[in-house]
Amino acid sequence: MKQYLDLYKNELLNNVIPFWEKNSPDNAYGGFFTCLNRQGEVYDTDKYVWLQARQVWMFAIMYDQVEAKEEWLDLAKQGAEFLIKHGRDDNGAFYFSVDQKGSPLIQPYNIFSDCFAAMAFAALNKVEPNESYASLAVNTFENILRRRDNPKGIYNKTFPGTRDLKSFALPMILSNLTLEMESLLDREKVEELVPSVIHEVMEVFYQKESGLILENVNLDGSFSNSHEGRLTSPGHAIEAMWFMLDLSQKYKDEELCQKAITIGLKTLEYGWDKEFGGIYYFLDILGHPSEKLEWNQKLWWVHLETLVFLSKAYAITGNNDCLQWFYKVHEYTWDHFKDPDSAEWFGYLDRYGKIQLPLKGGKWKGCFHVPRGLFQVWKSLEKIQ
Amino acid sequence: MKQYLDLYKNELLNNVIPFWEKNSPDNAYGGFFTCLNRQGEVYDTDKYVWLQARQVWMFAIMYDQVEAKEEWLDLAKQGAEFLIKHGRDDNGAFYFSVDQKGSPLIQPYNIFSDCFAAMAFAALNKVEPNESYASLAVNTFENILRRRDNPKGIYNKTFPGTRDLKSFALPMILSNLTLEMESLLDREKVEELVPSVIHEVMEVFYQKESGLILENVNLDGSFSNSHEGRLTSPGHAIEAMWFMLDLSQKYKDEELCQKAITIGLKTLEYGWDKEFGGIYYFLDILGHPSEKLEWNQKLWWVHLETLVFLSKAYAITGNNDCLQWFYKVHEYTWDHFKDPDSAEWFGYLDRYGKIQLPLKGGKWKGCFHVPRGLFQVWKSLEKIQ
Repeated sequence: MKQYLDLYKNELLNNVIPFWEKNSPDNAYGGFFTCLNRQGEVYDTDKYVWLQARQVWMFAIMYDQVEAKEEWLDLAKQGAEFLIKHGRDDNGAFYFSVDQKGSPLIQPYNIFSDCFAAMAFAALNKVEPNESYASLAVNTFENILRRRDNPKGIYNKTFPGTRDLKSFALPMILSNLTLEMESLLDREKVEELVPSVIHEVMEVFYQKESGLILENVNLDGSFSNSHEGRLTSPGHAIEAMWFMLDLSQKYKDEELCQKAITIGLKTLEYGWDKEFGGIYYFLDILGHPSEKLEWNQKLWWVHLETLVFLSKAYAITGNNDCLQWFYKVHEYTWDHFKDPDSAEWFGYLDRYGKIQLPLKGGKWKGCFHVPRGLFQVWKSLEKIQ
Repeated sequence: MKQYLDLYKNELLNNVIPFWEKNSPDNAYGGFFTCLNRQGEVYDTDKYVWLQARQVWMFAIMYDQVEAKEEWLDLAKQGAEFLIKHGRDDNGAFYFSVDQKGSPLIQPYNIFSDCFAAMAFAALNKVEPNESYASLAVNTFENILRRRDNPKGIYNKTFPGTRDLKSFALPMILSNLTLEMESLLDREKVEELVPSVIHEVMEVFYQKESGLILENVNLDGSFSNSHEGRLTSPGHAIEAMWFMLDLSQKYKDEELCQKAITIGLKTLEYGWDKEFGGIYYFLDILGHPSEKLEWNQKLWWVHLETLVFLSKAYAITGNNDCLQWFYKVHEYTWDHFKDPDSAEWFGYLDRYGKIQLPLKGGKWKGCFHVPRGLFQVWKSLEKIQ
């Protein structure tokens, strides 16, 4: 696997990270531009809070785990300063987006701004311990837990009582965030949270009959035969499975490890487009027409998270199915998402693998899944050496 | 044009209307199913209020303007009864969706439920005069006007003051709705409203430099260089142009007529996919990557509304560009959206014209654009004979 290891490492260090270092910082107002076209030019100056936070996290991780480069730490710190100054409303909830100068644009309807802010400040506090980073991380984490039952708060459009669903996204993110935050949380808190999120992911949202994970279930965990209830997102489920693998290693839970591998591979077989290759974005578990117009598009993060899952699973167990799938997904991903002519990767392909949007960064794509994915695969392959 | 006239008329009467008559009514709980697969089978039972209302309107119009068939009137009335019983919250605002039995699912965050409810009850009142229909139509219309400055109400996620935009959708729909409601409104009210919506559509949202219509502008009408501000929807703009043609005929406004044709044709040239044919769903007016993943898909309603615009424009003026474009759009539309093997039309194609979703009805496609489009083209071509 040595040539793969080098490929992922070089791509991260010599292509992707330099792209964001060069094109993304807003030297006038702080924070990061993420709407970057194919050549890396800024085509829109709005700042999406969760993408700001993800980039802070990424550079803190690079500094912590790759090399203690001052430029990387400085970038993380300048993003964090922007978030501290402009990111939150009076209740401490993080906005969804702000404009270039930091004036709020979209209210904190989306709890993932908070999730990634907590993750960013926790990571930054690790490399640059600072009471304001630490308390911001912890307070935001507490906020998330408080909002857990109604993450959208007053912006929730669901009429209460008719079809109350819970969403996979929050337990899934908490299963990763709790580990990321570990150094800042009481041990008791962690030991209480971890089993409950594992239970949610692996038993409540996991559907035995199909062997797949659902995006939404009834509050009692049962199946809701509705558009939301039938929705599956293979990339989402597979990403959660590598969070489970990490937990299984930390807690030496062999059963969890095996179950995560079984679900991940099953999801990959289910989500793989047998005709044109690549992994679908959304599928209806009963095979009905999706309500998502983009259901059959091939998205970068889905493929990168799958490579992370496969490389981790292979590194831990040597499972040959994981290795064969790794080769196959690797080939599709590098053939289609990597831009042969300029830095960073494409994000959005149509079903046939053609470029659907020529951007390198946008409202939903920032400095996160490509570099985190490359980093994670590199580190997994290193364990095999 | 005689063979075209027959084609549109036959398709409406012998293919599309029978599809909805047969597959759509919910004989157990009232109202209509709209999630219908390729064969017309129900794959989801949720009821989307605006689609319920649109179908009531369509059958009332069929009864009023095509033939006084009792079955059509009965269908319109049963849909109306369902809406009266289950459609509204305590403030009289129409929900976005309810379940099969009528229990509310999604709150009235979307004012288009109200717009189409007002339109439906006004049309039904015309063929079956009834105080409760009439007052419901008028009260709902008043509600819409009251909510005009903040249509999403408490569900609005925009932070006030940073970038306050207004949206094209409301003046556009009001320009049609006001005519639809005319018999129920004070003449004074209509004469006050009509010029103001024409002004909004043709001067505020119309951008002189590009000759195109924007989906969102600043409150003072100026251009907002943001994702929302750069957004254009060719189908939306062209649909509005046939509303303008209707107004120009009613008010004998030759200048409005000519301007609507100029803008409609300009939009069509701009929105036409020169490589694969068909009209794009969304485009960024500065050519930047769209924030909409479905931007290059080809949607049924866009093409049908364009055919309505072109047939009306040609019937009124004999403009040869309109005729040539009619032939071209007709050919694409019938080749790609009509299902050769079963009734009703496909709704969603990818950029290349392949079926993206195999449904005949869903969350956003009901008994409306196909039958209304076929009806309108038929009636326009009749005027030429």
